[in-house]
Amino acid sequence: MTQSAEILCIGTELLLGQIVNTNAAYLATELARLGIPHHYQTVVGDNPERIEQALAIASGRAGLIITTGGLGPTADDLTHETLAAYFGVPMVEHPEVLAHIEALYRERNRPMSALNTKQAQLPVGAAVLSNPVGTAPGITWQPRPGVAVLTFPGVPAEMKAMWTNAIPFLRTLGWGEVIFYSRMLRHWGISESALAEKVEPYFAKQNPTVAPYANFGEVKLRITARATGPETAEALIEPVERELRELAGLDYYGKDEDSLASVVGTQLARRGETLAVAESCTGGLLSEMITSIPGSSKYFKGGVVAYANEVKTALLEVSLESLLEYGSVSEVVAGEMAEGVRRRLASDWALAITGISGPDGATDLKPVGLVFIALAGVAGTEIVQIRLGAQRGRDWIRRISSQSALDLLRRQIARLEASDIMEKQSN
Amino acid sequence: MTQSAEILCIGTELLLGQIVNTNAAYLATELARLGIPHHYQTVVGDNPERIEQALAIASGRAGLIITTGGLGPTADDLTHETLAAYFGVPMVEHPEVLAHIEALYRERNRPMSALNTKQAQLPVGAAVLSNPVGTAPGITWQPRPGVAVLTFPGVPAEMKAMWTNAIPFLRTLGWGEVIFYSRMLRHWGISESALAEKVEPYFAKQNPTVAPYANFGEVKLRITARATGPETAEALIEPVERELRELAGLDYYGKDEDSLASVVGTQLARRGETLAVAESCTGGLLSEMITSIPGSSKYFKGGVVAYANEVKTALLEVSLESLLEYGSVSEVVAGEMAEGVRRRLASDWALAITGISGPDGATDLKPVGLVFIALAGVAGTEIVQIRLGAQRGRDWIRRISSQSALDLLRRQIARLEASDIMEKQSN
Repeated sequence: MTQSAEILCIGTELLLGQIVNTNAAYLATELARLGIPHHYQTVVGDNPERIEQALAIASGRAGLIITTGGLGPTADDLTHETLAAYFGVPMVEHPEVLAHIEALYRERNRPMSALNTKQAQLPVGAAVLSNPVGTAPGITWQPRPGVAVLTFPGVPAEMKAMWTNAIPFLRTLGWGEVIFYSRMLRHWGISESALAEKVEPYFAKQNPTVAPYANFGEVKLRITARATGPETAEALIEPVERELRELAGLDYYGKDEDSLASVVGTQLARRGETLAVAESCTGGLLSEMITSIPGSSKYFKGGVVAYANEVKTALLEVSLESLLEYGSVSEVVAGEMAEGVRRRLASDWALAITGISGPDGATDLKPVGLVFIALAGVAGTEIVQIRLGAQRGRDWIRRISSQSALDLLRRQIARLEASDIMEKQSN
Repeated sequence: MTQSAEILCIGTELLLGQIVNTNAAYLATELARLGIPHHYQTVVGDNPERIEQALAIASGRAGLIITTGGLGPTADDLTHETLAAYFGVPMVEHPEVLAHIEALYRERNRPMSALNTKQAQLPVGAAVLSNPVGTAPGITWQPRPGVAVLTFPGVPAEMKAMWTNAIPFLRTLGWGEVIFYSRMLRHWGISESALAEKVEPYFAKQNPTVAPYANFGEVKLRITARATGPETAEALIEPVERELRELAGLDYYGKDEDSLASVVGTQLARRGETLAVAESCTGGLLSEMITSIPGSSKYFKGGVVAYANEVKTALLEVSLESLLEYGSVSEVVAGEMAEGVRRRLASDWALAITGISGPDGATDLKPVGLVFIALAGVAGTEIVQIRLGAQRGRDWIRRISSQSALDLLRRQIARLEASDIMEKQSN
């Protein structure tokens, strides 16, 4: 089969905007990884006529239709019924699926609902794609020549757990020979236009291609190669990656799944150093980002969320005088917070953030979006002030502030390590 | 115009799964709010032929095409060019747009890139939809009878800031008369099947309709009414909402934009009580959830992220004996963490979480997903143990644990208030 895949997400909750379509993003990533071309994603509601219309369009332009959603136990879950109707086959009950659902309920000590029996009814001719996490199975099916169908539940954890089981089916369809291989280079502290100007000639390249993206204060360059295997792809990508990294300098911080938190974690783990944090306006987000990295307990000692001023004095040893003279959102208090938490938790490094994330708390001199970030280390304390403005809102200010704090530590360690290397070379 | 809208999201990064399509969810919510029917969402890459094909399908089944993405300054941003080509008009430069872009760069003290001038070129006949946050303007356009076009950049903050400016254009198209009005009832601590069985007869209702959804451990019921105005819609929804809430009892926790964090915040603010938290495995997520609520500084004193054991003893006064005898993941240590942070931060309530979020740290007796949650208050300390399993991963364990902690406090306050009311009634 040489045609492309199309993702068809089914669920009125998507059309009403009540959930965000993370399933499409996950499936898209997996299709790219397997080199399965994929040109369209479609979303329709829990409506059998429109699902049938979307199936008609998709089966006319794609050889593989991957659906998510509509496999639940309730009356508005219609995916398998509608597929059977569209391709003109009846439904049949699978006793092994029913047994699996019953076992799952026994294991969880909950009574099985009569509604769940519906989930064991599948289109005739379809094979069961088992669901190791939940009750809803999917199917793998070739309802007619040139058209293959894969169905998944809408619950992301279940869909992801089932994806691996679907790969052998994709192999039988002949996919997985041409690899569509991407590398994302990540940058912090430079605008999309400024980076684009630096690397402009690369945008005209064909294999690999280079394209820029910007979101959440981050600028990315995606290098994409088409090749018959991962080694060939890597040989195409590697020299371009090296050149782009040289052009970006210290604004480049990592690639692919790297985050500022994971890069800082790798730096700290490599150096055997520890980190503690003190947060005010970010309210725990910086800690959350750091600890979202598995293994962070090796270098992260912990943190204090000092929302109330008395917490700043009681747990962080910030002086009352500084709070009264400069206010809690100030360079001085940021520095004392970082030094206080570094001392109390006996860490090598400490980051502190204090700022005004809004919507309340601003004054004429201290507008929403004013943030102070302090980094305390063995050689002293570095403090930066950033002004993020109020327009993009509270969450954005909290996120950019936390990322900027991590970036401050990343750059300081990178500069330290670069000067260590130069010192060694000059010796 | 009586036709429906279609959302067309343009960007190869969506087809590669490198970003999640939050724009579609935002626009869908807004369309629902305005009563604009919306049956399809389509995603295509930065490819002019496929964008044209998607425009052909969309303009055949929808009267309003809303695009996101492809308005940036770089060569792969093709939305306006492709719209002009599809509808057969040339592009024209808008000097006022160019002046806005130049002003924005001056304000940010950055040099404008020559690439940005491209963003001032729009299809002839289209009106500028101004972008108060970024450089890329959108357009409002009726390229031919029965087809209207609205374009937005792909950066969510910019798209949202521009949406309000697009509403007058939608009014000129005659939309906003029939209101499609939804209410989401939110539940914690009950399975989708169990709740569905309790409220089953409601799923057959027509106006309003009732439909269940489940994600991230939460079960929701959506009530949707079609009406000519918000009051009529409310009159249809309100009695059904009241009956459903009665059936759900204490498992119902809030509606629409409510979260467990906002509901707990409202309870605490109403009672004039304060909260502090101590977190181990959730690493700051519980604090982050609490402080994501604007105004949380009124009731949230702060928290300690006690990742390393020495932080538990140094800042939370957990006894070394308890750590040695029971281990850091234990009922006893959870209780001491909650009591310790409550004492240190002098709060009315304190929540503590300690558990194994994996992938490392598990033992035979303490598997991944084992979590202890403690709630300390004036009347003593309540401790619960939950077992979440390892299958759904670290982020899921951290999220469900944090939500469960908030739910523990919510229920305790709700029971307290219920018994206060009964006491008053019996007096």
